[in-house]
Amino acid sequence: MDYNLLKELCSIHAPSGEEYTMKNYLLQYIKKNQANWKVQPKLYHGEEFQDCLILVFGEPRTAVFAHMDSIGFTVRYENQLVPIGGPDAKTGYRLKGEDSLGPIACELEVNKENQTFYKFGRGIDRGASLTFECDFRESDEYIQSCYLDNRLGVFNCLQLAETLEDGMIIFSTYEEHGGGSVPFLAKFMVEKYGVYQALISDITWVTEGVKHAEGVAISMRDKSVPRQSFIQMIQNLAENSNIPYQLEVEASGSSDGGYLQETPYPIDWCFIGAPEDNVHSPDEKVHKKDIQSMVEMYKYLMSEL
Amino acid sequence: MDYNLLKELCSIHAPSGEEYTMKNYLLQYIKKNQANWKVQPKLYHGEEFQDCLILVFGEPRTAVFAHMDSIGFTVRYENQLVPIGGPDAKTGYRLKGEDSLGPIACELEVNKENQTFYKFGRGIDRGASLTFECDFRESDEYIQSCYLDNRLGVFNCLQLAETLEDGMIIFSTYEEHGGGSVPFLAKFMVEKYGVYQALISDITWVTEGVKHAEGVAISMRDKSVPRQSFIQMIQNLAENSNIPYQLEVEASGSSDGGYLQETPYPIDWCFIGAPEDNVHSPDEKVHKKDIQSMVEMYKYLMSEL
Amino acid sequence: MDYNLLKELCSIHAPSGEEYTMKNYLLQYIKKNQANWKVQPKLYHGEEFQDCLILVFGEPRTAVFAHMDSIGFTVRYENQLVPIGGPDAKTGYRLKGEDSLGPIACELEVNKENQTFYKFGRGIDRGASLTFECDFRESDEYIQSCYLDNRLGVFNCLQLAETLEDGMIIFSTYEEHGGGSVPFLAKFMVEKYGVYQALISDITWVTEGVKHAEGVAISMRDKSVPRQSFIQMIQNLAENSNIPYQLEVEASGSSDGGYLQETPYPIDWCFIGAPEDNVHSPDEKVHKKDIQSMVEMYKYLMSEL
Repeated sequence: MDYNLLKELCSIHAPSGEEYTMKNYLLQYIKKNQANWKVQPKLYHGEEFQDCLILVFGEPRTAVFAHMDSIGFTVRYENQLVPIGGPDAKTGYRLKGEDSLGPIACELEVNKENQTFYKFGRGIDRGASLTFECDFRESDEYIQSCYLDNRLGVFNCLQLAETLEDGMIIFSTYEEHGGGSVPFLAKFMVEKYGVYQALISDITWVTEGVKHAEGVAISMRDKSVPRQSFIQMIQNLAENSNIPYQLEVEASGSSDGGYLQETPYPIDWCFIGAPEDNVHSPDEKVHKKDIQSMVEMYKYLMSEL
Repeated sequence: MDYNLLKELCSIHAPSGEEYTMKNYLLQYIKKNQANWKVQPKLYHGEEFQDCLILVFGEPRTAVFAHMDSIGFTVRYENQLVPIGGPDAKTGYRLKGEDSLGPIACELEVNKENQTFYKFGRGIDRGASLTFECDFRESDEYIQSCYLDNRLGVFNCLQLAETLEDGMIIFSTYEEHGGGSVPFLAKFMVEKYGVYQALISDITWVTEGVKHAEGVAISMRDKSVPRQSFIQMIQNLAENSNIPYQLEVEASGSSDGGYLQETPYPIDWCFIGAPEDNVHSPDEKVHKKDIQSMVEMYKYLMSEL
Repeated sequence: MDYNLLKELCSIHAPSGEEYTMKNYLLQYIKKNQANWKVQPKLYHGEEFQDCLILVFGEPRTAVFAHMDSIGFTVRYENQLVPIGGPDAKTGYRLKGEDSLGPIACELEVNKENQTFYKFGRGIDRGASLTFECDFRESDEYIQSCYLDNRLGVFNCLQLAETLEDGMIIFSTYEEHGGGSVPFLAKFMVEKYGVYQALISDITWVTEGVKHAEGVAISMRDKSVPRQSFIQMIQNLAENSNIPYQLEVEASGSSDGGYLQETPYPIDWCFIGAPEDNVHSPDEKVHKKDIQSMVEMYKYLMSEL
């Protein structure tokens, strides 16, 4: 698998609230590549969808959600920073952004009270957003970079798009910071296409029960408990697929799945994603085998579900 | 009053996410008993409603919500358990369930860090759910069992169903674990039947202000503050009914009422339920007088509202 | 500017759940004054809107939200009080209300465990609500009173109404206590009028970055992060307006804007409001210059957006 696309995705500045950069990148990518896809999708975007992007292939029965936004920081007053989502914060992390005076490349500082600041040669505009500078590392076994969560989930969707015949791919916004787009996206998928099943293409955590190189994680629950009959059906299909996977059970953590559960539509959902180390830091790390298994599992499930 | 039905309801394994067992039980029960009811309801269930079940009697003006799910535990990794909802956890509590190897009857263990484990002769499948073993106790004055919350609320609805002429009974899911069905149930009750009033048939707490044997509790507020003009109307009706009741005022606690308040429909709601001791434990305890008063109050209010 | 209207608004007892008093006051006010307004609005209210009130002027493109409710206290058992929203509580604060025995004027007591009680010559009905007694103070520079949050936001809307040609003004409920009306209000504004833009007319905090007399605060984010392209557009307009304003960036705090973000409609929103000292106390304090700038900014933005 060629990871240049993933590298590009990881370096795009698109914290929650500013996903239009990712949307524009994806629109360009789709325009350039879709001629080689098995089916050319119908695209939905524009003000009615804020900065979200929806691809509809054939006659969809299931939707895949991948959030485009990342965690980051907003400049407050003086040299203070406030978090966007839940970033890992350590003194020395490299940050980037842009304000009215031009591009920014600065350093993060964390004091003993866990307050965050930037260190830069000049003041930065109030409200400007900063994200991690991307240091993309590829070894024989691992990919390491900021923002694998969730540019890898987006990457997975673009791999899936190449051969997908029937299905929806939904690129959502705000996942890292309280949500806000899933409700109207759910409304669209149900009211326009009658689709009631969703897979969440996102990244999870390496834990004592979910390990590197043992396959994509199928989550039976996190903070939310999805309908277990749907999870069971997914698990049975996964078992038949002969693609490596591991089952995840957690009491915390959430995703676009949790937001789907709260919409006024009876939508079943299941989180399926590769596990990573060093969550929400510049050094997120995923095993290539798990990426491979994630892509294969989505291709299999989207044809079977 | 005959409590054999309540005993059966309390012993059904249906934690949040697996309510289909309760739904199936209720469908059987209704089939068998509705010939003796004053009005035969129209039933709504199936994939469009996930595992929920709706009974519509005559021309409904008000809906009664009773959640079918219970608290419990999910098996994580090794012998670890994570909670479903907020179960009381003490070493020695008896748990039951089932996995691919067969039925499970095991014991709960809680360590000093309040982490929960199971003790059983074999490993249990990852993701399997466990609930309290039912030890149903009836004395002259009290009923004691696990899961009076909310099988007693369900029982109340089945008593109400015998004589109900106009109204909806809605058996909901996920109440104990963050909700998720009330939004689409509200959509149905409003858009299909134009119903904007709801009573929440659920169980509350014995406190310094709400006591055993003093009647069903009518809650003026909990964590959520319902519209007080609706509460005042309910209270006036209750006063006229000559049925014993007590007023509850709390700063915490929530129910399907709180979820109703967040839907995109202007629905008024009031929580009305018997108070219990030993909340979310295997030893939940309710006074028979309060059950009697709960059933009578619902019959009265559903004819008057 | 004449602040007698604001004084009247601040003295109305309308905690979350009992906003009908404010709605009735506003209906009277509108009836009496709208003949002098540039455009006479269409009014929406009644059971379909619970206690909310909507004014539609001409062909609306943008809606202004102002919540009518205030923080306060509910009488629990004995002489205990539980909070409605997040009131500042100090021993000696004067409270008022009414119950079945008549009007109430009593005193707040706070013990070392931060529990709250009332001190009054008689017991008060369970569930009765109490709010701060209004001591309205006007100096050359400042207005000081309880409930500037958010009667000043309401006042701002009534100033705006005098000259508004195209727009909606939405008086909402429950903002201080978990929300509940914004979802159905959003449904109405989108489905009936196709309006997807909202300004939040509410009060914010004086902080190290937002100061008295430096103009109305335009919030770039609080606990929620609104879509930054909309915020940027507002900021550009504000810059062109030559009306004083200051930019706010916070990690906490929320408003009807946060509730709008969670609705199933793609609505852009921006919080714009004067900053105050002594938040949620009887001594909320706002600079007159900031009130002036708030009113002017709304008039300008509502004609430009």
